[in-house]
Order: sequence, then C-alpha cells, then structure tokens
Amino acid sequence: MKMLNGVVRAQQFDKATVEKIFAIAKEMENNVPPDLLNGKIMASLFYEPSTRTRFSFELAMLKLGGKVVSTENAREFSSAAKGETLEDSIRTINQYGVDVIVLRYNKKGGAKRAQKFSKAPIINAGDGPGQHPTQALLDLYTIKKHQGKLEGLNIALVGDLANGRTVRSLCYFLAKHYPSNVVYLVSPEQTKMKSDIKNYMDKYGLAWNETDNLEFILPRLDIIYQTRVQKERFNKNTTLYDQALEATDKLAITDESLKQMKETVGIMHPLPRNDEIRYSVDKNPRAIYFAQVHNGLFIRMALLKMILVGY
Amino acid sequence: MKMLNGVVRAQQFDKATVEKIFAIAKEMENNVPPDLLNGKIMASLFYEPSTRTRFSFELAMLKLGGKVVSTENAREFSSAAKGETLEDSIRTINQYGVDVIVLRYNKKGGAKRAQKFSKAPIINAGDGPGQHPTQALLDLYTIKKHQGKLEGLNIALVGDLANGRTVRSLCYFLAKHYPSNVVYLVSPEQTKMKSDIKNYMDKYGLAWNETDNLEFILPRLDIIYQTRVQKERFNKNTTLYDQALEATDKLAITDESLKQMKETVGIMHPLPRNDEIRYSVDKNPRAIYFAQVHNGLFIRMALLKMILVGY
Amino acid sequence: MKMLNGVVRAQQFDKATVEKIFAIAKEMENNVPPDLLNGKIMASLFYEPSTRTRFSFELAMLKLGGKVVSTENAREFSSAAKGETLEDSIRTINQYGVDVIVLRYNKKGGAKRAQKFSKAPIINAGDGPGQHPTQALLDLYTIKKHQGKLEGLNIALVGDLANGRTVRSLCYFLAKHYPSNVVYLVSPEQTKMKSDIKNYMDKYGLAWNETDNLEFILPRLDIIYQTRVQKERFNKNTTLYDQALEATDKLAITDESLKQMKETVGIMHPLPRNDEIRYSVDKNPRAIYFAQVHNGLFIRMALLKMILVGY
Repeated sequence: MKMLNGVVRAQQFDKATVEKIFAIAKEMENNVPPDLLNGKIMASLFYEPSTRTRFSFELAMLKLGGKVVSTENAREFSSAAKGETLEDSIRTINQYGVDVIVLRYNKKGGAKRAQKFSKAPIINAGDGPGQHPTQALLDLYTIKKHQGKLEGLNIALVGDLANGRTVRSLCYFLAKHYPSNVVYLVSPEQTKMKSDIKNYMDKYGLAWNETDNLEFILPRLDIIYQTRVQKERFNKNTTLYDQALEATDKLAITDESLKQMKETVGIMHPLPRNDEIRYSVDKNPRAIYFAQVHNGLFIRMALLKMILVGY
Repeated sequence: MKMLNGVVRAQQFDKATVEKIFAIAKEMENNVPPDLLNGKIMASLFYEPSTRTRFSFELAMLKLGGKVVSTENAREFSSAAKGETLEDSIRTINQYGVDVIVLRYNKKGGAKRAQKFSKAPIINAGDGPGQHPTQALLDLYTIKKHQGKLEGLNIALVGDLANGRTVRSLCYFLAKHYPSNVVYLVSPEQTKMKSDIKNYMDKYGLAWNETDNLEFILPRLDIIYQTRVQKERFNKNTTLYDQALEATDKLAITDESLKQMKETVGIMHPLPRNDEIRYSVDKNPRAIYFAQVHNGLFIRMALLKMILVGY
Repeated sequence: MKMLNGVVRAQQFDKATVEKIFAIAKEMENNVPPDLLNGKIMASLFYEPSTRTRFSFELAMLKLGGKVVSTENAREFSSAAKGETLEDSIRTINQYGVDVIVLRYNKKGGAKRAQKFSKAPIINAGDGPGQHPTQALLDLYTIKKHQGKLEGLNIALVGDLANGRTVRSLCYFLAKHYPSNVVYLVSPEQTKMKSDIKNYMDKYGLAWNETDNLEFILPRLDIIYQTRVQKERFNKNTTLYDQALEATDKLAITDESLKQMKETVGIMHPLPRNDEIRYSVDKNPRAIYFAQVHNGLFIRMALLKMILVGY
C-alpha cells in the first residue's frame, strides 16, 4: 500500500501515478464508497475565496465520509496587525490534528513552503500565478475520457496563455508524460505563453506551434482548451487588458466556429468564462466544460483516497 | 410518493401542499428523524450574508442527518474580474453532485433563473427585494399554531410595507389560499404597500383596509405582524428614511399598546428588529416572534424532507 | 453527574473544576471517544474572524462526533442597516436548537451579555480586550504538563501586558488557585500590566515583580510566556506602537537568551507571533508554543464534554 504525500506541483507525478489517479477516479465514478474516509478531517485553508475549488474538494471529502473545517478568510492570519507567517499558520493547524490541508494561497510557492512545515499532507488548490495541479489532472482526465486516449492528439490552448496557470500546468503534464501529442498555442501578442513552458516542452520533445490564427487550425483539432483573459492579473493596466480582450475576442468559440470543427472535438474551459465561449455553444455535445467540472469531483476523490488511505 | 421540486415563489403552492407542509412540520416538532437525510448534501449559496436564514436551513439539514457545504461569499463568482453569470455558477455547482441548493441572491428573480439551469432543486432564501417564500410559510404556520386556524382573523401588517418582502409574500399566500381573513395595511405615507399586492388581494377577494392609525384598530386584531424600516432599501436617501423612521415609531408596540390588545393576539416580527417592538414587550406571552423563529426550523425541515425524500 | 454551564470568565472556576478539566483533557489525549457528542450541534458565532480559535473548537467538536454550523461574519447581524442587538441574535440562534454557542465578540462583556439570554451554554472565545478564558486554561495545562506541577514556579509574562487578554486571564487563574508561584511582569513602560490585575494578585497573596530587565531574571525562570505587541489595540497611535515595538524587541527570545535559561524552562506564546521569539528558537526542545496549541485542542474537548454530556 502506497500513500500519496500531498499534491504540490504538476511535476511531482510520474506517469504510473497519473494513470493510477485516473483509474481510481474511474472506479469512483462507478461507485462512491461512502465510508472510505470516516474519521478523517480536511481543513480548507483559502487565502483568497474560490467557492468553486473549495466546494469541489469539500464535496469530494463529504461524499467519501470525511469531515471538513473551512475558511475563505485565511488571510486574516497574516493581516498587517498580526503578521503571522504562512509557516506558523500551517504548524498551528497541524496541532489541531487535521489529516489533510487544502491550501489556496495568494502567492506563488505557497504550497511548497507549507509542505515543509506540515505533518498533514498539503494539496495545492492554486498558489497565485503559480500552479493548480489538481485542475491539470482533471483536464487530462477529461481529454482521456473524451478521446479515449492521450496520444497523437492535436490540442489547442487558446486565449490568455500568459496568465493562466491551468494551461501552464497542463503543458507540464503533456510534455513530461504525453509528448506524442501536438500543442497549439493560440493567443494574441499580449498574452503569449511564456518561454519557460516552451523550453520545457522542447526539452521533452513535445511538438508545439504558436499562432494567432485559430480559424486556420480549427479543422484539425481534437481538443480546444479555451481560457478567459484574467483581468485580475493585469495589475490595473486597463489599456493592455482591453487590447488583450479585443484580440482574444477573435478567438471566441461561436456557432460559426463549431461548423469548422471535427465532430469528435472536445471543447474545454477551466471556468469561469466570460463570453470567449458563446452561451449558444453550451448545448452542443462537443461542449464538455461542465463535464470537466464533474470529472474534477472524481479526480479529487481519487487524490483524497490516495493521500488518506493509500492505494 | 411525490417530490417537491424546490421552493421558488410563494405563488407556486396549492393549498393542499401548504397544508401538507404544515402537517409535516408538526410531525417534525414531535419527532425529528435523525437519519432521514443521510447521504444527502445541501449547498448554501449566499450572495449576501444572512447568518439567520443560513443557520436555520443548515441546522434543519444537520438535524435530519444531512450534510452541508456553505458560502456567504458567493458574490466572488461574479466579481468584476471574473464576471461569471449566475447560470454558469449554478451549473458548475450541480456538477459536484449536491442534492439541493439554498440560494440567497442579491437581485430579484435569482431563484427563478437558477432553477432553469439546475438539476438540484433550488430553495429561494430571499432574492433581493423579491420573495422569501419559506419565511412566508413559517409566518402562516405560526399564525395557525397560535390561533388554531387560518380563517376569519384580523391580521395587521405594520411598518415598512413598501420594502418588506416578507409581508408581500405573506399577502400572496393569504389572498390565494386564506381569503376569509381581513388584512390591515398599517403604515405611514412613505412605506405604503405597493399596488400590485393590493390588486392581487382584490382579485382573490381578500378584504383589506389601509390606515396609519394602529391605535384605532388595535382592539380587534388577532395577529399583529410588525416590521422594521429597511434602511438598506432606501438607496441612501436618508431624508426619506428618517421620515419613515419617525412616522413608523408611532406604530411601535409598547407596554401601553399591549393594554389595548386582545389577550389572544399574537405579536409577530420577521426579525431583526430595531425598536419597533420595545424590548419590554418580549416577556409578554402574546409576543411570539421568537417562537416564530423556532417554527421556521421545522418548516425548513419539512421542505427538505419533501424535496429530498418525498411525501 | 454535573454539567458545566458554559465558559464565560476565568474567575468562574473553582480549583476542583480546573483540576477536573485538566484530568479530562489528559484522558482525551490518551483516547478520543469518537461518538461522545453524536447528535450535538455547536454554533461558531464569530463577530471577528479568528481561524485559529474557531478551528480549534470546531475540530474538538468534530473529533468527538458532534456537528458544527459556523460564521466568521456574525457582525452583519448588527450592521448599520439592520441594527440587531447581540441579545436578539443570541435568542434567535437558540430557537434553532443548537446545543452550545462558541462566541467571539468584538467588545468586552459580550459573553456575559449573551449568557443571560441563552438557553444553550455560551463559550467565550474572546471578547475584545476582555477575556479569553479557554486560552488561559490551556496555558495553565501546558505549564502543568511541562513542569509536572503548578506550584513554586517562577513564571515570567513578557511583552505587551497592557493589551494581551491571555496574560490577564492567566494572572486571574494563578492568583485565585495557584498563589504559591511567583509572577514576573516583564515589559517596557508603554505596555505595563494594568493595576486591576496587580491588585487582584495582591488580594490573593500571589507574589509578583515588575521589571524591564529580562536578562537579569532569565536564569531563574521555569516558564517564559512571551507575547506579541498587539498593533490592533493601539488605535492607530503609530508612534506609541513603534516605541513599544522597539522596547519589546529587547525582550525577544533569541539563541543567545536560550543559553542563559534553565534546561527545564518552557517557552510559551499564545500565537500568532511576529519575531519576539526568533524562528531559530523553534527547534529547541524548550520551545513549547506549538505543543501549547495542541494542548488547546484537548482542553476544548474536555470543556465540550463537561458542557454537553457532563462529568
């Protein structure tokens, strides 16, 4: 029996573990064991609110028989007046005897810092502009479920590739474990994928292509992963944000673009969306962004099982 | 076995269903079945905080064996930066496999919009200046418990009738199902009941009388439903608010006014109050506003049973 | 079988009860009975956020089989617009059938006011600059565990003694029940212990000494209770705060000061800390401030047992 010691970075997983996570998630989809985590307690420690991610983890825990304590207000630990370090907060919470800590932190590297001081395994639920590894896992799982494989696919990442941590984590996984796919980086000038990720993909021999012409490549795609321009990461530079918004609007998925896609394409989005996927697209069976959310529940159940009772 | 498909508007209920809710609430008062909702999960999704209403629903759920995930911070879904629609948020939460969603929304019509996109039944826990139907049900239930009937009663609604959604929902119910009662609309000029409700009562043949002279009608009343002037609905028009406050202070329930009331009158209030019912009145047995809160717990238990396991 | 009727003030406990709390906490450390509080529900009612204290109580409750409803946002009860009194809020929550209320209030005396109107026992989790009695209990318990006794010890309270409610509550307990110890009040001019506490210690015959020279007394100490200068209590008087900070920095616990202490000394802190205990000290076995947090969990379990099922 192995135990998974938390989830901090996308890069921590070998391919066998990723496949194991998917296998357990699949089992969970067929049959949720309602008492598996009886007696276990999770702390949701969110330094910025994220109802979406928090609910996903908490429901995974509750459905498996575990219990939850929760705050969306963890930032008061480190308020100006009190000035506690993340490390002290994590050590304190460990003293209460929690079994796992789901941490959303507002700065890059939070999960890694927390892990050093925590007996309870840490699950990184997003650390500022850093990583969001469980999102990347559920994204991969969704691709695999939709296409039946994770090889030889043409995958377009579209929109705000400069600021989206989900597309960054996804590229890590694809490069390291599934390099036979081809990645299209589709974005305007303002929000291009940064070079560290491109170098990483090069290193692992994953072919990628950068373009701002979605229309041209649309017919060949197996997966379109659309993203929102993240206003909150533009540091109030509204001119740049407006330019990015205008440029990405040309990349929006519309009823018109649906006509040029394969029948088997999967249209994904980490959500929330604005209108980079038009609402009229939702009812099309190729739209799988809500199925993607659903898959996330089972990926998180699988991770909680692997961390709390082993595999 | 029938299932109640959520609670969105006061008008959705036929009389038989209302009576059924009351019957089940009564049973619950005698005997709370602690495992009735085992395995069921409620999401409390509050776009504005309301500890009172949220606790009432969550305790109803927990006491029946169900589980809860909860946020008072749901507005971050639709923050300026992220811009998600209510509809997308509701669809997302549905993907996590919740069994029922209790929704407090900050704009009228939220519950109805949510219901269209939700597999899980929606319970409207207040939608801005719109409705608060479970409050109206517990109000009616309280009147029935106190007077032993819902017919032939003289019921005064007092105070801020323009902005109080509880009195509006109550009028709907009375008009549609219990038109043999008489409703006194007692308010100053600034906060009169709006004409849509008056028209609705006329349509169903419910007799009503509008006055600003509470003292005159006091001896004949069976129920006095007092309300608070809702400062937060005056849009910072402090002059108008101050006038309303001054005018309604003449309608306050005091030790003096108690002397003019029937011994059997029930004094109600949806709470919170300021001092439109003086604190000295609390110990009088005719004061039933805290009993009203207690009744709310059982009405919400009854609704959760009818929604989650049927009736 | 006796029932503890809440925890409002440090002074409420006789010595036998304090010793009983410690004995039950010790039992809990050896064996947590996971179903002891089945069917019981706690309400966490926090008028200001305190994730630390809230989690400690909620985990104590969950680990003993109880359930929790929770808000860090209770202040909206009494917002400008709604204006509800604490008393009405407490009476309302009682109507929902909770078994115990953990109250953090933003003004002194909150717990006492709440208790008058509450059928459910109140646990004071801090009331502004007033008391925090469960913290004092866990502090005493920690001293007893570390030194094996609560008699004849030299105990230094260091830092911000003017604003720290934990040191105030601790002095009450020591004076009333354990007057054979000696208390050193070590602080700069700006943050001296107030005279009410000094008078209380005099009244009970507890010897105390006031100094700003920690170094001089360091070799004789059995317990050093370090505290943070509480910026939030200085009412934006930043000059005074800066002076206090500078003065207390001379009292910081460093690797250097460790050398002058007994091998058996226990270094405590109510946390959060800034750097009045240097991080390099953490790994020293004499540093027991995280053990102190751990002890708090069991003290709170003991109190919940005594309140909810008796002793």
